[in-house]
Amino acid sequence: MLKAGILGGGQLGRMLLQSAANYPVETFVLENDPDCPAAHLCHHFTLGDIRNFDAVYAFGRGLDALTIEIESVNLEALEKLEAEGVRVYPTPSALRIIKNKIRQKEYYQSVGVPTAAFVVTNNLVELNNHESFLPAVHKIGEGGYDGRGVQIISNPAELSKGFDAPSVLEKLIPIRKEIAQIVAVTNDQHYAFFPPVDMVFNPHLNLLDYQLSPADIPEEARWKVEAISLSVVRGLNSAGVFAVELFIDQQGEIFVNETAPRVHNSGHHTIEANFSSQFDMLWRVILNYPAGNTKQILPAAIVNLVGEAGYSGTAAYQGLEEVLQMDNAFVHIYGKKETRPGRKMGHVTILGKSAADLVYSANRVKEKLKVVSTAGKIIE
Amino acid sequence: MLKAGILGGGQLGRMLLQSAANYPVETFVLENDPDCPAAHLCHHFTLGDIRNFDAVYAFGRGLDALTIEIESVNLEALEKLEAEGVRVYPTPSALRIIKNKIRQKEYYQSVGVPTAAFVVTNNLVELNNHESFLPAVHKIGEGGYDGRGVQIISNPAELSKGFDAPSVLEKLIPIRKEIAQIVAVTNDQHYAFFPPVDMVFNPHLNLLDYQLSPADIPEEARWKVEAISLSVVRGLNSAGVFAVELFIDQQGEIFVNETAPRVHNSGHHTIEANFSSQFDMLWRVILNYPAGNTKQILPAAIVNLVGEAGYSGTAAYQGLEEVLQMDNAFVHIYGKKETRPGRKMGHVTILGKSAADLVYSANRVKEKLKVVSTAGKIIE
Repeated sequence: MLKAGILGGGQLGRMLLQSAANYPVETFVLENDPDCPAAHLCHHFTLGDIRNFDAVYAFGRGLDALTIEIESVNLEALEKLEAEGVRVYPTPSALRIIKNKIRQKEYYQSVGVPTAAFVVTNNLVELNNHESFLPAVHKIGEGGYDGRGVQIISNPAELSKGFDAPSVLEKLIPIRKEIAQIVAVTNDQHYAFFPPVDMVFNPHLNLLDYQLSPADIPEEARWKVEAISLSVVRGLNSAGVFAVELFIDQQGEIFVNETAPRVHNSGHHTIEANFSSQFDMLWRVILNYPAGNTKQILPAAIVNLVGEAGYSGTAAYQGLEEVLQMDNAFVHIYGKKETRPGRKMGHVTILGKSAADLVYSANRVKEKLKVVSTAGKIIE
Repeated sequence: MLKAGILGGGQLGRMLLQSAANYPVETFVLENDPDCPAAHLCHHFTLGDIRNFDAVYAFGRGLDALTIEIESVNLEALEKLEAEGVRVYPTPSALRIIKNKIRQKEYYQSVGVPTAAFVVTNNLVELNNHESFLPAVHKIGEGGYDGRGVQIISNPAELSKGFDAPSVLEKLIPIRKEIAQIVAVTNDQHYAFFPPVDMVFNPHLNLLDYQLSPADIPEEARWKVEAISLSVVRGLNSAGVFAVELFIDQQGEIFVNETAPRVHNSGHHTIEANFSSQFDMLWRVILNYPAGNTKQILPAAIVNLVGEAGYSGTAAYQGLEEVLQMDNAFVHIYGKKETRPGRKMGHVTILGKSAADLVYSANRVKEKLKVVSTAGKIIE
């Protein structure tokens, strides 16, 4: 059996391993938390830091293939492993581009895909030279994750909120829609496109509210989304699964926002909604099998379950019974022992015949199901 | 998190654990093969014999709930654990009835469900007294599994093929169809019926050829199948998932054949084809969640992958690529290192819009995909 390792043991690793058990593959996970969501679902778990050269190198030696579930991994170790014959998904050179937001933006320019205008700022002093560029979004080059490392700067008074480290300052685009396009790339450079996903944000809280697939966009926009995504992944020259996030502005122009070189939150519905899921697809790529069928069986929505504000400690799932009673809901709890405000604790996929049904059910899930803590609310 | 143990670590355990990772549950497996299909997918694996009192008792102490993936487990240990407060699915008293084919047949009589006429034979001498009962099927009371322990006796000359042990001799029914009905029973005695499954046998080889769901039977037959299955599981007085196998004879009469008090081969398609799978359903029962939605999203077929005759040793999957290229096929390889003739090595689920499509695709899978061994065919 092929030996395949995953750097990181979070929920993406967990879902990858649920899917791996359909195939003959021996699985390995490296993560520094022995209770992480993926730790118990692999053949071999190694405790170690995915950012540490020695840990990653020792883990990867002797494996046939490696993949990641988070970008903040030790790149030098992956490069050495690749040179020694371990297949790495995505390739270290693709990961090097994606991992740094500055290089990522420069890459989009270099392959000629539309992306928001930007300037590079190396520190707060440089940032202060770009008053005329506002309103803008400041994104730290490395180390940002899950909303951290991203700051909207609407006016000069907010410049002090920026990062005193190499970053990109991007022109704020008046967004009509945010779309995610998942693309699988096989070892022999076949591209398989999943139906695009509408990432619906709550305008009041700037929070991802739910995701709908297929996205409600005109066919021509879908072609553009696919064409832009193809340019993005083709230039990376790497097999694997990629999630390209795009903006559609008020005029209908399409821009790349950013790319994840891995399975992605916007593709979780593919577990139930598509013939081949994003997780199945990555195994097919790693195992050198033919690409799967990305066709959707039924329209789907995803609701993310994040730790409720004001609750920390041992997780409890308020309203879970009511959601489990819904006829078309698929509950995924990631098994994290501790909740924190905003922590990704699970998701619910909903299948339905129409977008209206899906939105209705998604809102019902959001209303009912809350991740709180057994200790109750913290009074602040 | 609730602590739940599975006795047995085969493919049913494997699929149960794939499904368990959607819920907050800590999983335990007892099995005497450290390389078994489920060993690496649980939080805690214990090496031990599921038929041994001490092994089962030690394993079950301290768990909240236990289930089985095979009937041949130590019943006395389960009874003691149940008395000490461990919830057992199915209950030991239900398992005691099912586990022994004689008691199972007597049970069907006692609850008044139609079943083929039978006599009990304690040894070959007694069997020889029943010439007038032929043609019949001789089934050993305990220890039969996967075709072993079942012998068709067509005429008096074949009586010597019978079992010299307590057995049932059942009148052979001229079968038109064989149906499987999966029923989930919650702790508060709610019954959830999956759509029935047609188990299609190859008339030449008497081998299970493929399974189709929903079964192609008239609505009235479906009601009868459900009513008989309900009588069967209600009388067992146990929560859990049950598979009731039934015959429909040439006159359309319906008889119970036998019952499995667990997830079952005839329900594997529910992973992709139904809103709640049989595996999901068992976790819902164990975790005391509401029953799931048994509704089918699309009609489905299951093709079992069994070790090809003439091949033993390290498994290889001939034709796997071609099946992975089929648009509507879902491959499940159980990860068993060694193949043997007839060993269950995996299955393929096919989704389709019509029975004709499904049968076409099922036959294609059967033609293409063969489980052989890396060493090649044994010349006999």
